[in-house]
Amino acid sequence: MAAASQALQQAAARGRDLEVVAFERGSATSYSACGIPYWVGGVVGSREELIARSPEEHRRRGVDLRMGTEVVGVDLAARTVTWRRAGGAGDGGGPPEGSEGFDQLVLATGAVPRRPDAPGFDAGPEAGVHGVQTLDDGSSLIADLERGQRDGTVRRVVVVGGGYIGLEVAEACVVRGLHVTVVQRGATPLGTVDDDMGAFIADAVRDEGVHLVTGEEVCGLELAPAAEGGRVRAVHTASGLELPCDLVVLGLGVAPSVALAREAGVPLGESGAIAVDVAQRTGAEGVWAAGDCTEVRHRVSGRGVHVPLGTHANKQGRVAGINLGGGYATFPGVVGTAITKVCRVEIGRTGLSTDEAADAGFQVVTAAVDSTTTAGYMPGAEPVRVKLVADQRSGRLLGGQVVGRSGAGKRVDALAICVWNEMSVEEVLALDLAYAPPFAPVWDPVLIAARKAAQAVERACSPGA
Amino acid sequence: MAAASQALQQAAARGRDLEVVAFERGSATSYSACGIPYWVGGVVGSREELIARSPEEHRRRGVDLRMGTEVVGVDLAARTVTWRRAGGAGDGGGPPEGSEGFDQLVLATGAVPRRPDAPGFDAGPEAGVHGVQTLDDGSSLIADLERGQRDGTVRRVVVVGGGYIGLEVAEACVVRGLHVTVVQRGATPLGTVDDDMGAFIADAVRDEGVHLVTGEEVCGLELAPAAEGGRVRAVHTASGLELPCDLVVLGLGVAPSVALAREAGVPLGESGAIAVDVAQRTGAEGVWAAGDCTEVRHRVSGRGVHVPLGTHANKQGRVAGINLGGGYATFPGVVGTAITKVCRVEIGRTGLSTDEAADAGFQVVTAAVDSTTTAGYMPGAEPVRVKLVADQRSGRLLGGQVVGRSGAGKRVDALAICVWNEMSVEEVLALDLAYAPPFAPVWDPVLIAARKAAQAVERACSPGA
Repeated sequence: MAAASQALQQAAARGRDLEVVAFERGSATSYSACGIPYWVGGVVGSREELIARSPEEHRRRGVDLRMGTEVVGVDLAARTVTWRRAGGAGDGGGPPEGSEGFDQLVLATGAVPRRPDAPGFDAGPEAGVHGVQTLDDGSSLIADLERGQRDGTVRRVVVVGGGYIGLEVAEACVVRGLHVTVVQRGATPLGTVDDDMGAFIADAVRDEGVHLVTGEEVCGLELAPAAEGGRVRAVHTASGLELPCDLVVLGLGVAPSVALAREAGVPLGESGAIAVDVAQRTGAEGVWAAGDCTEVRHRVSGRGVHVPLGTHANKQGRVAGINLGGGYATFPGVVGTAITKVCRVEIGRTGLSTDEAADAGFQVVTAAVDSTTTAGYMPGAEPVRVKLVADQRSGRLLGGQVVGRSGAGKRVDALAICVWNEMSVEEVLALDLAYAPPFAPVWDPVLIAARKAAQAVERACSPGA
Repeated sequence: MAAASQALQQAAARGRDLEVVAFERGSATSYSACGIPYWVGGVVGSREELIARSPEEHRRRGVDLRMGTEVVGVDLAARTVTWRRAGGAGDGGGPPEGSEGFDQLVLATGAVPRRPDAPGFDAGPEAGVHGVQTLDDGSSLIADLERGQRDGTVRRVVVVGGGYIGLEVAEACVVRGLHVTVVQRGATPLGTVDDDMGAFIADAVRDEGVHLVTGEEVCGLELAPAAEGGRVRAVHTASGLELPCDLVVLGLGVAPSVALAREAGVPLGESGAIAVDVAQRTGAEGVWAAGDCTEVRHRVSGRGVHVPLGTHANKQGRVAGINLGGGYATFPGVVGTAITKVCRVEIGRTGLSTDEAADAGFQVVTAAVDSTTTAGYMPGAEPVRVKLVADQRSGRLLGGQVVGRSGAGKRVDALAICVWNEMSVEEVLALDLAYAPPFAPVWDPVLIAARKAAQAVERACSPGA
């Protein structure tokens, strides 16, 4: 809903004569989906705290908002959408289905959790199998946990997938006193960071008491017979492991919700998400798209990628809304920045990882350094490791990863902006970054890493190499 | 010594046949001068912790290092320096003065505390008037404080000047249980930030128990008669204030030590510091300079400025050393990034302030926003205020300032890199900065500020404006 919310705000503010009708399948608008794991873990006290703008607020700004109402078809030739009301969504009376005409259409259909293509994984919350994408997902997960912890039927949780959301939910479940297993295919969690950096995360996850099972493909979900409630009993892996559990969380990330777009004939991109231009226009006349259902351009690889993230959704929604309202704005793409925190360990990444850079055709050099978040002699100094990925031929910084304790993670922003501006590691090492003993060593960790990467580039380019 | 140390390391590593002779007037090499306030405040336990490389370590790497030995003259035609040993520096025996020939000369003479041009301010440590530039300054300040606090003769400290070092020493003295007054000319501390941002610092300084006297010019230092010990008794201001004290710290910043260069005929720049090119060459054949004695190019104003800071000194020393050793490296200038912490308040600045931008001929728009360091619903959310300075005609980001609690200050790095790359505020608002609830709101404070600045630029540029 982030994209839709921004689009509504901007379009309503700029296009004063626009008549805006919005459909939301669920029961909430404009919320922080990224905050759901913290709500599950009790760090955030209530569902309401995650809501930035309620249905009433949208309506007060002139949006004709239909809650609990799903758009089930788009007819581009007839310029109509057909909709259906979910049972019992309690949004006043009215007919159960209908259609609505439009001049301009914004698709902000979001994403749905990826499910392993294996028996049993199509089970839903009633079987104890939960996604964590929407507030309604969060509500049903929390209700299931509370009930199950109260009556003792939920003690063991398996999280399938060790990505950002998977790890965050795993930590939340540990905080709730549950026995948690994370099972994943890769050698280390967070597939978008290099294995040597991911190893720090693996250690942090295990230190927290999570049972981390790596290098395992899940191949089936075992459910109790319907007569015994039909709930999940175990997750099975291809190598023959059986992971007994009372509840499963899908942490494999999300796939763009493109069924509506595809059926209507709105073109999809190479990633499978809806293709859009920099103004958030799709390939269909008068149809815009924004948020987790769309493809974004990766500014380093040049490829169309699917990066579902609230911060992009907000920006894209703003851009679509401004353009719809008669202004002009663009969304110039992403560099793949992401960040998370596992217990006390922070990790940030941006640009291309070593493997991604090689895939994209670069000749890769890397440099990793261990430093501290403050001058080494200050009492609060925390370890931080910075790894840079550069192109050997041009010295261009292609990506960077930062892992460490408090104060480490957000340093990835510096690298993200360097990558965005296509700086070489030689340029990066000369940057004027903020220095004082409580904030960095006299050579900032980012600069030390850049110096080492520049040396690696120089060595690789020197005649004898 | 940061610049000299780096130059020695690099030159020794690259130019294997170089014979390197180094002169140090004081008793320590390669230390963190920026750490001195934390040593004074007891955060750092000892002088030794601030030393990165001892004289012995330099000698082990082949440097012929003469400690306690001051160069008192340079003869560029004869290619010699004349030197004099300080009394009792205890560096073995040998003659009290002499001369040494050179092919290449590196000037890394550093800076000396600025003193008000008023009676009494030429007094030294023996009168209780202290600078905080060198480790030896720190030793003598701490010795004076310890003695004076033990025998009860030092209870009130006046810090003249509310710059970075002045505030850091003021805090250190409060921590030591002293009554501290900071007196300064400007309306708020830290002259390099806008007054509205400086006001937060003023509040923090006062909350800490410091007596902050603003808008006052000091006009004299009152000393006890020599017969009564000759120590400082009070600082007087032009408006007639008398600030009684037992010890004075000079916190007015530093002036480059250029006497040796000037007398030798090495050209100075517009700032009064030694002029150097990007390779750290001075205008005199075979003479290099690096560190606090040199001028640097400000990449936004284009002017030659004096920015004495350990991080620049390190980089410049590295560049001079590489070039001396037969390699090639450059120091591409600064954007004026600085950071400090006063009690729990962090402040960072980069680029040009509002006044500096106007002085440099830009048509200035500014935007300031209040946000939080994490998603607002997270329990650790701390306030952060971001102010941006942009050029109205081009939308170019000229500078930025960040003030807030823990986790706020270092965010200025993002702005520093944007300024460095001459990004427009419109570009900045689209940046892919790291987002997750524990690290930022979904719109990072930097992005919100850029969005507001872009709106200000748009408004100023629209036909009706």
